[in-house]
Amino acid sequence: MSVAVPAGIEQALRSLRSAARSLRRMSAEEKRTILVTLADAIVHASAPIIEANAADLSALPPEASPAFRDRLRLDERRVEAAVEGMRQAANLPDPVGEVVESRVLANGLRITRVRAPLGVILLIFESRPNVILEAFSLAFKSGNAIALRGGSESKQTSHAIYGVMRETLSRCGVNEAPFYGIDTYDRALVEAVLARNDLIDIVVPRGGARLIEFVERTARMPIIKNDRGLCHTYVDDEADLAMAVAIVANAKIQRPGVCNALETVLVHRAIAETFLPALHAATAPAKLAWHCDPASARILAGRAGVQAAAPEDWDTEYLDLVMNCRVVSDLEEALAHIERHGSKHSEAIVTGSEARARRFQDEVDAAAVYWNASTRFTDGFELGLGGELGISTQKLHVRGPVGLRELTTPRWIIDGEGQIR
Amino acid sequence: MSVAVPAGIEQALRSLRSAARSLRRMSAEEKRTILVTLADAIVHASAPIIEANAADLSALPPEASPAFRDRLRLDERRVEAAVEGMRQAANLPDPVGEVVESRVLANGLRITRVRAPLGVILLIFESRPNVILEAFSLAFKSGNAIALRGGSESKQTSHAIYGVMRETLSRCGVNEAPFYGIDTYDRALVEAVLARNDLIDIVVPRGGARLIEFVERTARMPIIKNDRGLCHTYVDDEADLAMAVAIVANAKIQRPGVCNALETVLVHRAIAETFLPALHAATAPAKLAWHCDPASARILAGRAGVQAAAPEDWDTEYLDLVMNCRVVSDLEEALAHIERHGSKHSEAIVTGSEARARRFQDEVDAAAVYWNASTRFTDGFELGLGGELGISTQKLHVRGPVGLRELTTPRWIIDGEGQIR
Repeated sequence: MSVAVPAGIEQALRSLRSAARSLRRMSAEEKRTILVTLADAIVHASAPIIEANAADLSALPPEASPAFRDRLRLDERRVEAAVEGMRQAANLPDPVGEVVESRVLANGLRITRVRAPLGVILLIFESRPNVILEAFSLAFKSGNAIALRGGSESKQTSHAIYGVMRETLSRCGVNEAPFYGIDTYDRALVEAVLARNDLIDIVVPRGGARLIEFVERTARMPIIKNDRGLCHTYVDDEADLAMAVAIVANAKIQRPGVCNALETVLVHRAIAETFLPALHAATAPAKLAWHCDPASARILAGRAGVQAAAPEDWDTEYLDLVMNCRVVSDLEEALAHIERHGSKHSEAIVTGSEARARRFQDEVDAAAVYWNASTRFTDGFELGLGGELGISTQKLHVRGPVGLRELTTPRWIIDGEGQIR
Repeated sequence: MSVAVPAGIEQALRSLRSAARSLRRMSAEEKRTILVTLADAIVHASAPIIEANAADLSALPPEASPAFRDRLRLDERRVEAAVEGMRQAANLPDPVGEVVESRVLANGLRITRVRAPLGVILLIFESRPNVILEAFSLAFKSGNAIALRGGSESKQTSHAIYGVMRETLSRCGVNEAPFYGIDTYDRALVEAVLARNDLIDIVVPRGGARLIEFVERTARMPIIKNDRGLCHTYVDDEADLAMAVAIVANAKIQRPGVCNALETVLVHRAIAETFLPALHAATAPAKLAWHCDPASARILAGRAGVQAAAPEDWDTEYLDLVMNCRVVSDLEEALAHIERHGSKHSEAIVTGSEARARRFQDEVDAAAVYWNASTRFTDGFELGLGGELGISTQKLHVRGPVGLRELTTPRWIIDGEGQIR
């Protein structure tokens, strides 16, 4: 049996339910105005937020990897991007009340399916503190209350952001804040909260494999799972090789610490001799570590960073400047590799053949399947959703970015004139 | 740690994944034909199926309740209803491949969201064996493979139905059957299977509170939860009382053993003196047991079946000819009662006031909220979905009946010309 949730935290979580009820009575325009006001307040407070972030960064142990530091870091540009996402979310159509379907049955019953919020969401996230703004904006706009629990490594940044949120909401006349930042950083508390499906309707874990596994094992409420992004790009023998180099280099290097970054490149053997040296040259400035299968290791022999791949590498999400590389004999072998090692997140094919692209898109069971583009686009902001609460790798409810509409479900409203069975 | 899944069952479950893959390559017309053929085969085999059911019924212990016996019973009429549901499902549009959204982003990426099956579903059900046909039809039509695990009380009926299904699929040239009837009836096996999110994508428990609680505690994969139906009907002082009597009587009596049947009637005090005796008279032939609050007990004093309600009664799903009855002072009190005791399934208001009806429908957080109709309509077949795999009382993915479309999720198909970030 797990321990109890401390009374103060239980009370705070309980109050989220009534905050969610008040939120449902707010008009779309009121919600829009509040979010825009909050976006302005964050811009205004960006200096102290970045300062708090610098303190979090300097408190990291020296062995923290560059990719980990990068995920934690907030700079002017990232605050601006978060604020732009908030404004995008503010101005998107309100999904609450959207009529999904409406018809009259033969017996005269008028049925309407109308979108309603999910209720109280618990977001557990690691390191990236801009997640707070993105998640709150989407939850607020879609009529949901949200409890946020970040990692202790971002606690000063989180504290600064929560302060601005609380102050702005209160200034806007929102008496019950529809968010609660949990600042107790022990795992026993999370375990206790995850047992309480009376307090929390949905839990969204955003973090590493250990976090996901823990939530999956512990949670008594539905999960929107943001599992690993073990993304592949398959370069076909009918690919435009210059395009393929640009796509693979972008997917691996532009921001390696995120889930839609590439981990493994699969290369058709007919073009491997040309393609791999070109890719190696193009990515040289990034000093990639290459974990190669025997065929690609032979082609790249003697080049910087090349080493033999270990069996577990094909299942490893590096989130770092490390890339697996394998030569395959055809599309079939690429599909089999992805079925075995993929994480149902984002997968890409580079090819000039529409037939092969369609087959790849039909058969690869992932949330997003690309033809001739970088997997880095699997992102709520890029796809016009106003950011995302997470990127789902499960098949229930939503696949890929969790945007506004995905934070609601349609319920049935049925009007009769006395119909009985 | 749970025990391992026996090798034979693991192999059978594993083969469901490749069966699901073959199913995705089948055309909508092929699937339609196979389902219609199966419906015919079930009609043809209805005598031996009903015979097997009679054997299951006579093996029940004498203390089994009439409502439990009713749920287990298959007769000509119920087989016909199941077959009609199969034909409805066969002829509905195929949700697989349905384009939910399609647009071109500013950067030229063409994005399309296309519905795809969930994968391999595990259905755990209790007693009602017609669930097999309904669930298989919906899963098959929506491109999902399904493992079925019924209660041991229906094992002979299940065995007979599985036999017809296997024989028909094989006759139709389906080499890998996209279903597997688990006929090992110990809980340890279910526990072992529920740990295997590599074998099962989604689990749907259909049964009593103990089953749901067990699955919620044990499952490592997403759940579509079919929890209790603790359904209320609120009779307002502006109700047409004859209509209200008909609606409440129907919701309680017509089939008390199902989840959309009524458990509690809430009556506005201004009409309680007139309404309650009329409802008692109309339901007299059913010999209802009335569990009453003090106000309704006073009004009905001396009438048959009337007794005082115990505190736990308001949270009890009887699935039997027992009804809770409470007098409330207004809509507000009815809403508060439902918020506290409801199970987010189906709730109804009977009133002549549209304003009150809309307020009730807006504020009651249930999958289906009725105005002037019986809660008994929350049913996939009644609502034109071709039956249902279950009725979800959770808020993730689907609320209410789980039909064809709800057995799929949209994924993102993205075409580019070399776009990178």
